[in-house]
Formats: sequence, C-alpha cells, structure tokens
Amino acid sequence: MSRFFSHRLDKLVPYTPGEQPRDMQYIKLNTNESPFPPSPSVIEAAAGEAGRLQLYSDPTCRELTDKLAEVYGVAPEQVVLTNGSDEVLNFAFMAFADEDHPLVFPSVTYGFYPVFAELNRIPYEEIPLKEDFSVDYRDYLNLDGKTIVIANPNAPTGLCLSLSEIEEILKTNPDGVVIIDEAYVDFGAESAVALVDRYENLLVTQTFSKSRSLAGARLGFGIGQKALIADLHTVRYSTNPYNVNRMTAAAGYAALCDNEYYMANCRTIMENRAYTTEALEALGFEVLPSTTNFVFAKTDKINGEALYLELKRRGILVRHFTKAGISEYNRITIGTKQQMEAFIASVQSILEELL
Amino acid sequence: MSRFFSHRLDKLVPYTPGEQPRDMQYIKLNTNESPFPPSPSVIEAAAGEAGRLQLYSDPTCRELTDKLAEVYGVAPEQVVLTNGSDEVLNFAFMAFADEDHPLVFPSVTYGFYPVFAELNRIPYEEIPLKEDFSVDYRDYLNLDGKTIVIANPNAPTGLCLSLSEIEEILKTNPDGVVIIDEAYVDFGAESAVALVDRYENLLVTQTFSKSRSLAGARLGFGIGQKALIADLHTVRYSTNPYNVNRMTAAAGYAALCDNEYYMANCRTIMENRAYTTEALEALGFEVLPSTTNFVFAKTDKINGEALYLELKRRGILVRHFTKAGISEYNRITIGTKQQMEAFIASVQSILEELL
Repeated sequence: MSRFFSHRLDKLVPYTPGEQPRDMQYIKLNTNESPFPPSPSVIEAAAGEAGRLQLYSDPTCRELTDKLAEVYGVAPEQVVLTNGSDEVLNFAFMAFADEDHPLVFPSVTYGFYPVFAELNRIPYEEIPLKEDFSVDYRDYLNLDGKTIVIANPNAPTGLCLSLSEIEEILKTNPDGVVIIDEAYVDFGAESAVALVDRYENLLVTQTFSKSRSLAGARLGFGIGQKALIADLHTVRYSTNPYNVNRMTAAAGYAALCDNEYYMANCRTIMENRAYTTEALEALGFEVLPSTTNFVFAKTDKINGEALYLELKRRGILVRHFTKAGISEYNRITIGTKQQMEAFIASVQSILEELL
Repeated sequence: MSRFFSHRLDKLVPYTPGEQPRDMQYIKLNTNESPFPPSPSVIEAAAGEAGRLQLYSDPTCRELTDKLAEVYGVAPEQVVLTNGSDEVLNFAFMAFADEDHPLVFPSVTYGFYPVFAELNRIPYEEIPLKEDFSVDYRDYLNLDGKTIVIANPNAPTGLCLSLSEIEEILKTNPDGVVIIDEAYVDFGAESAVALVDRYENLLVTQTFSKSRSLAGARLGFGIGQKALIADLHTVRYSTNPYNVNRMTAAAGYAALCDNEYYMANCRTIMENRAYTTEALEALGFEVLPSTTNFVFAKTDKINGEALYLELKRRGILVRHFTKAGISEYNRITIGTKQQMEAFIASVQSILEELL
C-alpha cells in the first residue's frame, strides 16, 4: 500500500480469482468455465469486428440489447449490459445500497459480495446457511429497506431456491431491492426473469461466461423494470459508457442467435454432472445436489485441501476454499465426459494410495 | 430515477458520449477516433482469441503487461491495465482522493472528471484556464494534500504543458498524487512517463483508443511507481479482476509489437492537423495550437452550434460543447487528408452561403 492510498479503502481485501497456473497443461475444473468453445458464428462475428476497432463501440449496445430483450421476453429498456456480471453487481450495489439500505446475503456465497460492499463502504450482514448448506428463504422475509443479494443457484454450494420462495422474499420486501444473481441458472434452476414484470424491486443478473462459453469476452447483464434499469444506466454512464467492447457485443449477439447450441451444451453438462455425482458418491463422497456447472463435494477419507493438492499434482485443478465451514469441500467444475472420467480416475487413485 | 436509487448518487449527472447517429453515413470527426484501422497483425491476434473465449482472460494480463513495460521502459509492476482509460482514471480517483484529499482540475477539461468525482462523492475544485485557454501550471503549485488531475494535452483545447512545468507541480505537491492523463500525448506532447521513477506521487494514464486505433477494444493503462500501481491493482481486484477481455489483451500486445505502424499514423495525423489548421485560418478561424488528434476552432462568422448543425446536415460530425466559455468553438477530430479536405470544403460552402 502506498502512503497515498485513501483511508476509505484501507481495509479492502480484494477478491481472489481462481488460479491460472502456467507451469503445465491442466485439466481446468476450477473456474466454472465451459469446456465447449463458442459456436462458429460467434467466433466469426467477434473476429469480424477486429477490423473496425478504431471506432468506439456503441454505448447503447443497441443490436445486442434488442436481441437479448427478445430472447428473454422483456423490453430493451429492461436490459443493461456490462463488462462481465461482476460489473452489473457492482453497479447495483452502488445504485441500491448504502448506509440506510445495508446489504444482506448468505454467509457462504459468491466471494465478491463482501468485497463490493467494502469497496463501496456499504454495511452488510451475512445470514448463515442451514446445516445442509441451503439458503432458508424464511431468513430473508420482512427485511424491508435492506438490499438482499442471493446467488441462485448459490455458489459454491450449487443449491437453489424455488421461484415461489424467491417470490415470497420479493413480496415481503417491497421497499428493498432484491438482487438475484443467476450466473448459473441455465444448468437446471428456474429464472426469476419470469417475475420481473410483477416486482419493481427485483433485479436479475446473469452472465455469458458459463452457459454461453464467453468467460474470456466479459459480458454480463441485468434485467428488471425500466426505472431500476434506468438507474443502472445512470451509474454505467457515470463510470464507463463504452464498457462493452465491439468484439464482445458482436459475440454476444451471435451467441443469442445460436441459443440452441448453448442450451444443448448445458444439457450435456447436466448429464456429465449426473455422471460425476454418481461416481463420486460411489467413491464415498458426499455431493450436494447441484443445479450449476459444478459440484461441491467432500469425503471423510481425505481432507479438502489435501485432495485439491493431490489432484493438482496430477494435473487436475479444482477450487478449494479455506473458509471455515467449507474447507472440507472442493468445488469441481463440470467439463466434458472425458475430463470428468479423468478426474474420477485420479480421485480413485488418490484414495487407493491412502490405503 | 426509481424510488430505490441511493441518495448517495441522486445528484449524479452522467457523462454524455459523442453522438453516434445511424440515420446516414457521416464523416465522423466528433469522437477523436483514429481514421486508420488497426494493423493486420492486431486484427489477426484479436480474431485468433475468439476461438478461446470459453476461458477467462488472464487477470494479470502478463504478456501485455510485460510488453508494455518494455516499450515504456518501466518494470511490469509499474503498469496497470484497464477497460479503457476511463477505468484507470476512476480507479485512481477512488484510490487517491477523498474528503481529506479533494480533487483539483482545470475548469475546462475532460468532462468525465467531475462525473467520477460526483460518483465517488469526492469534493473537487475547478481552476479556471487562462484567457488563452491554457492551463497555468503556477495555479497547481503547493496545493499539497490535494489530488491534482491534468489532461496533458488538455481536451477539448488541445494545448499542453511542458515537462518542466509538470515537474514543478510534482515537486511542490509531494504529499498529493498528481494524475497526468495523456490520452492524446502521442500526437506531439512530451510524456511524463519520463518522470515516473523520480516522483512517487506521479500517475500517468494513457489509452490505446486514439494513437493505436483501438477505441472499440477498450484498453487503457496507468504507469507509476510500484506502490501506487499496487493500490490500483487492489481497486481493480476489488472491482473486476478480469476487466480486460482476451481479445483486447491480444490486440494490445500485437499493437505494441507494431509500434512503428501506429507512430507513422500519428505523424500523418499531425500533417493533416497542420493542413486543417492552415486551411481554417485561411477561412478566418481562430485555431488553438494543438498537440492532439483534434483542433479546437471558432470564427466570428458563424456561431459554434450553428456551424456544428450545418456540418451535420452535410454529413460531417464534429463535437460541440454547450458549456459557457467554449460554446463558440467546435472540436474537430483530425482524420485522413481526404476527410479533412471534405471538411474544409463544407466549411467553405457554409461560410459562402452566409454572404
């Protein structure tokens, strides 16, 4: 820290992204990326923009906004696009939370929420999960005036709330914004976009990073009622009006035109998830029932960190969190069938060596 | 504004980007873009990444950081990369300014400074320009503890301070960060990067948008001493660690490898600027001496807004600001020789019609 760093931020502990080691070629099951490349038309669209990069991107992202609105059945004024969904989350925290509207989120969830809260100096309260790692929706009723953030499905647990549970939260908090972070929704949960027209306090955020194979392009979005989205545009135009670059906007548009390719990939991942879950259970693991492109699993045969390190030594990366309460677990991204077979084979050999 | 919008931001007036109308094909001289496309190797590099977009970008941007450090003669730890230079400016305001370290910048300058200040609720003071529109460096001496931001060259005037004047500001403000925003430095001004190793309070920001034909890719950077840059990384990792997407990182790397192509383009633009300045002066305009890729000009024959509107009607876009004191002027981006000839011909015919 320099002696010039503002006192406002001197307690800030940045987010730690999943490791991207370069010492060897790993099977990467640690950052919830898709194992499938973008579709050919996406690659072509992004590449086609590379020759026009001397021109600014369109700050309104009009084609992409219109297409996204069409796919999700909302009006274009109900959509805001951002440089990854981290950006829409940060914008939403800035717009809808402050000392009078503190944040509330689960104690085990996406690690960026407390960082954004600290960055924006917004007080926050963490509500413990139930013993089975689920979010109890009843803990979020009648917190009115507070700003609620729920990853649904939640990370790194993979568990989700039902739409009717989310609706209860929305109904009982009419004066607080409820942010539903649906980064993983395409892998088996229900989207709250269906509720947007009925609840003015609902903001749904999603990303193209996981189900649409565009983690490296950085594209996220928010959907809500027009007034809420207008506020996010106010923040966006006060931060970085050209936040989405030309190539990414073109890639996102093409990805939405190719929606069936991506939804088919999601089904494949759900099949591979079923295979992985079963195989891990057969090896004595406890696996939380996942509606995401990862599973969260532990065994009493080897501790979480030791398993992570043994897998890494064998060229397989998974994500281990040292946080108390979840340090026995590993979060394993679901890749191709071949990758998951290699993963299971490695786990099996690690367990055998322990005997 | 929704009823949920935080009171913190309710006075926020967002930045207005230059218009991007779509009703016809304009000669765009309004957003300081380069008229030259990226070099072939940049197009190829960006396109090549499109097939790998399922993977996150490298949060350390290692290759690009190393190359940029090499080109600018600094250590990699002295470089931070951002999603356009607006982002590094916003990060710097967050990191180095607050109620105890208010911002100081010229009254006529890049319109985003007061927006970032308001967004981050940092008090700011605007220092008037001299009558000839120049920044008087003596106004910025001994403001110690304040955070000084100077666009050098300044926009929309195009005028610049000398390096020795900037050095005086640095010397007399040892306890305040001095941010030199060099978005336009490659068109004829001296870069303060040469001073970075001697002044721990200096942050230089630049962009690939103008001189390197990458406005639509969004790539900016900051250079300073390691401690200052570490603070900006703390903010970056607390905001959006993957802020630079894969395609843009590859494009930026390739652009640095092709530096001579871009520096030759800058020389061409400086020639076209000389042509434009002379031609405007011959038509009775007053043109500020520019060290940027634009000129700021007025005439008493037609007011600024009327000229802007007449040019637009003829298919030529320039930038007009309604702000008091500069509303008689237009900011005209320097394009190709052919574009500038078309611009001059249009101005000439507009003036003739007034007779």
